[in-house]
Amino acid sequence: MIKITKQDEAKNTNKEIRKRRNMLFKNIPITNANRLINHGPTVLITSRLGEKINVMTVAWQMPVSFKPMLVAVAIGHERFSHKLILESREFAINIPNLEMLKDVLCCGTQSGKDIDKFKVCNLTPVKAQKIKAPLIEECIGNIECKLYSTHEAGDHTVFVGEVVATSVKEGIFDNYLRVDLEQAKTLHHIGGKVFCSPGGIIKS
Amino acid sequence: MIKITKQDEAKNTNKEIRKRRNMLFKNIPITNANRLINHGPTVLITSRLGEKINVMTVAWQMPVSFKPMLVAVAIGHERFSHKLILESREFAINIPNLEMLKDVLCCGTQSGKDIDKFKVCNLTPVKAQKIKAPLIEECIGNIECKLYSTHEAGDHTVFVGEVVATSVKEGIFDNYLRVDLEQAKTLHHIGGKVFCSPGGIIKS
Repeated sequence: MIKITKQDEAKNTNKEIRKRRNMLFKNIPITNANRLINHGPTVLITSRLGEKINVMTVAWQMPVSFKPMLVAVAIGHERFSHKLILESREFAINIPNLEMLKDVLCCGTQSGKDIDKFKVCNLTPVKAQKIKAPLIEECIGNIECKLYSTHEAGDHTVFVGEVVATSVKEGIFDNYLRVDLEQAKTLHHIGGKVFCSPGGIIKS
Repeated sequence: MIKITKQDEAKNTNKEIRKRRNMLFKNIPITNANRLINHGPTVLITSRLGEKINVMTVAWQMPVSFKPMLVAVAIGHERFSHKLILESREFAINIPNLEMLKDVLCCGTQSGKDIDKFKVCNLTPVKAQKIKAPLIEECIGNIECKLYSTHEAGDHTVFVGEVVATSVKEGIFDNYLRVDLEQAKTLHHIGGKVFCSPGGIIKS
């Protein structure tokens, strides 16, 4: 008889998480990009200017147009990503899952001005298809954007991006994001330190 | 012994729902308005122009600024509410709960150009505090807005509203929206006929 210890179980769980994290991204039609963020998940925005890459946590995002497919994110004037996106005219929206709560908090509470947040927050930058900004390997999906327009709104700038590529991890997009699957449970910021996550799917 | 029939049970459930729906709205600070929509719920937008009132379902909304407190909604050019908001320069964001799925679908699939959607979709318009557009009695919270700016983005206009009042039904806002309570479970549109709702609260 082989005795399975708690440590073995933990090792297996970690292996499972790593395996899921390393699954391949698969392209979906650009016209379906809105179906990754329609329901309001908190996202990680990646950007690059020259050799400098950055990632920040953003709760304020929404699609804004079907034709062309446009998405918008609101970013505070003082944020380092604000400068990187304005100058590089590119960004990516990366969708973390519930397992990544710690990473999301890490990216949301530090500035990339002085540190490499990918390293500090233990995230893996991977090459995008159509833009120079990196994607995040651990995330479940991403939306690559070229800057379409910017709009000032109080203490934030609304960056509108035209979607140029969209991909999702294998097995979790079936014409809609399968938030009923453990791996695809998105994170949603309510306020302060409080989040929620989908309890399942409702088909009307 | 009093026998409780299934009909009695149904009647009690309906009474309970009606009771909950008729609970009073209570003001919360304007600076907390973002805490009703940070997590991306599908909302009902109300507007008024003269004697004409309208309500439409919108999944594309987000806060965009703290100072001043601004929120944004993206509305298609052809929608009747587009005209009403542009001309009246006011709108309200009303937050439905899971119980209101049928109403949300009703408001999202018909145009107010020819019909009174409040009547057709069985919703009760109530007086707002600071704007002429009505609020929806059955909803769990609302954000009253004066039009701050508009921005064209593809086939939609982004309407940015300055928050002038915010209220929430009693007992469901405790510095954050208590989506762990049945009454405060918000509805989130994923795509097509698929929705989700929060499974509970995660405190980080």
